Amino acid sequence: MSGPSMTGPSTTGRCFGVGVGPGDPELLTLKAARVIDACPVVAYLRASRRESNARRVVQDVLRADHVEIPLVYPVTTEAVPADEYETLLVDFYDESAKRVAERLDGGDDVAVLCEGDPLLFGSYMYLHHRLAPEYSTEVVPGVSSVLAGGAALAMPLAARNETFIVLSGVLPREELARQVRDADCAVIMKVGRNLPAVRAAVTEAGKLDRAQYVEWASMPAERRMPLAATDGIRAPYFSMVVIPSAAAQR
Amino acid sequence: MSGPSMTGPSTTGRCFGVGVGPGDPELLTLKAARVIDACPVVAYLRASRRESNARRVVQDVLRADHVEIPLVYPVTTEAVPADEYETLLVDFYDESAKRVAERLDGGDDVAVLCEGDPLLFGSYMYLHHRLAPEYSTEVVPGVSSVLAGGAALAMPLAARNETFIVLSGVLPREELARQVRDADCAVIMKVGRNLPAVRAAVTEAGKLDRAQYVEWASMPAERRMPLAATDGIRAPYFSMVVIPSAAAQR
Repeated sequence: MSGPSMTGPSTTGRCFGVGVGPGDPELLTLKAARVIDACPVVAYLRASRRESNARRVVQDVLRADHVEIPLVYPVTTEAVPADEYETLLVDFYDESAKRVAERLDGGDDVAVLCEGDPLLFGSYMYLHHRLAPEYSTEVVPGVSSVLAGGAALAMPLAARNETFIVLSGVLPREELARQVRDADCAVIMKVGRNLPAVRAAVTEAGKLDRAQYVEWASMPAERRMPLAATDGIRAPYFSMVVIPSAAAQR
Repeated sequence: MSGPSMTGPSTTGRCFGVGVGPGDPELLTLKAARVIDACPVVAYLRASRRESNARRVVQDVLRADHVEIPLVYPVTTEAVPADEYETLLVDFYDESAKRVAERLDGGDDVAVLCEGDPLLFGSYMYLHHRLAPEYSTEVVPGVSSVLAGGAALAMPLAARNETFIVLSGVLPREELARQVRDADCAVIMKVGRNLPAVRAAVTEAGKLDRAQYVEWASMPAERRMPLAATDGIRAPYFSMVVIPSAAAQR
C-alpha cells in the first residue's frame, strides 16, 4: 500500500475498505490505523438517529484536518415495506458511492470505515461493488464481532475438523434450527428482537444446554450469559448467540 | 486488562491468549501489541522444522528482555498413526501448559501467541482449556486467516441473510460436497495436499465456477486464482478455498 496520493488531481485516489473491528478501539489493526492516518478523507455509514459506531471506534486516530463523509442511512428497516426499503437502499448506496467517487476523482485517497470485517456481513461491500470496477481499491480485514464474541466467552468457537457456521437471526426458525442441528459449532448474528425465535430454534436443535448469549462484545457494556438464562432480556442489535466447540477439550 | 504484574511472586501472573492475525505484521491489533509489550514472557507453538509463524509476525514488538518459551510440536501428523499422534499431542499440551504455568506461578504475565484468532481453530485453546481453571486468563481476538482470504480476493465472504460456513479440507469428500452445496457461502481451510479432493467436492456441489483459491493470504507470497485454474498447484498449508457471496451485489 502506498501513502496518501502524491500525484496531482489528474490521478484518481484509492479507495480503502477498512475494517475497524468489533467495537473496542484497541482491536483496530496497525494497518487500519496507518491507512486512516494516511487518507485525507474518511467515509462511514451510520443510522440517522445514532452516532456512527465505526467512527467512534477510530476517533483517536482521526485528525481535525480529516475530511469526513458521513453516509446516513435513509430509513430503518421497520419504517417502510420490505421492497420499498430495498429500493431505497439501492439508491442510497448509489448516492454514497457517488460521494466517495467525487473525492477519488479529485485525487484523494478515501478510507471507508466498516465495523468488524468489511467483507463478512460488512456494509463496505456495497460501496466496493460500485467503486471497484473504476477505481483502485484495497480491503483491510478487521476483527469480526464473531471473534469478539468467542473472546468474550473465552470459549472455543471451533476446533480441529469441526464445521463452523455463521447464521442470521432473521432466518425462519425452522431453517435456523436445521442449520444449528447440522453444524458442530455456530454463531447466530442479528439476534436483537429475534432473540425468542433464535432461542426456540436452538432449543429445537437440541443445543440449548451449550448455547451462550453475548451482547456488546468487546465494548464497555459487554454482557454474557447462558442462552437459557435470557428470559426477559431485551437484546440490542449488537448481540449474538454462540454454540461453542464441543471438540476443543483435547 | 492491567499491565505487567506489579505484585510480588506471591500473586500468580495472568495468561493472555493473543491472536496475532493472519501473517501480515500490520494486521496485529493495537491491543495485541500492547499486551505483548506488557508481558515479560511470550510463549508460542511451532513445528519442529519451521520458524514459528506467530513469532515472526510479532518480531518487531519483541524485545531482547522478553523471555521466550517456544513450544515445539513433537511430530508431524504424517509421522505416526492417528491414535498415537493424538496421545502425543495430549502429552505435548499438558507439558506446554506446565511450562506456561511455571511462569504464571512465579508471578509473570504470559502472552501465548496464536496465529489468526485464538478461538477459531487456534492452537491456544488447548492451553486455555488446561490453564483457565486455575489462572486468570484473557483472550485477545485477532484477524482470522478466513478474513484475510476474503480481503485478498476483495470478494464478499457473506452478505445479508446468507449462511456462511467454515470447513476443514480434511473432511471426507462427500461430506464436504454436501456442506458446500447447502451453505450460501463457504471457506474451506486446511487445503494443502487435500486440494484435489476439495476441488472435486466443490465441483460435485456445483460451485466450481464461483470458487476461488488463495494461498499465503496477507503475506508476501500471497497468490490467488479461480479454483478451476489450480491444475498442478502444490498447495501449502496456509491455503484455502473460498465460495464467495452471491447476494452481495445489491
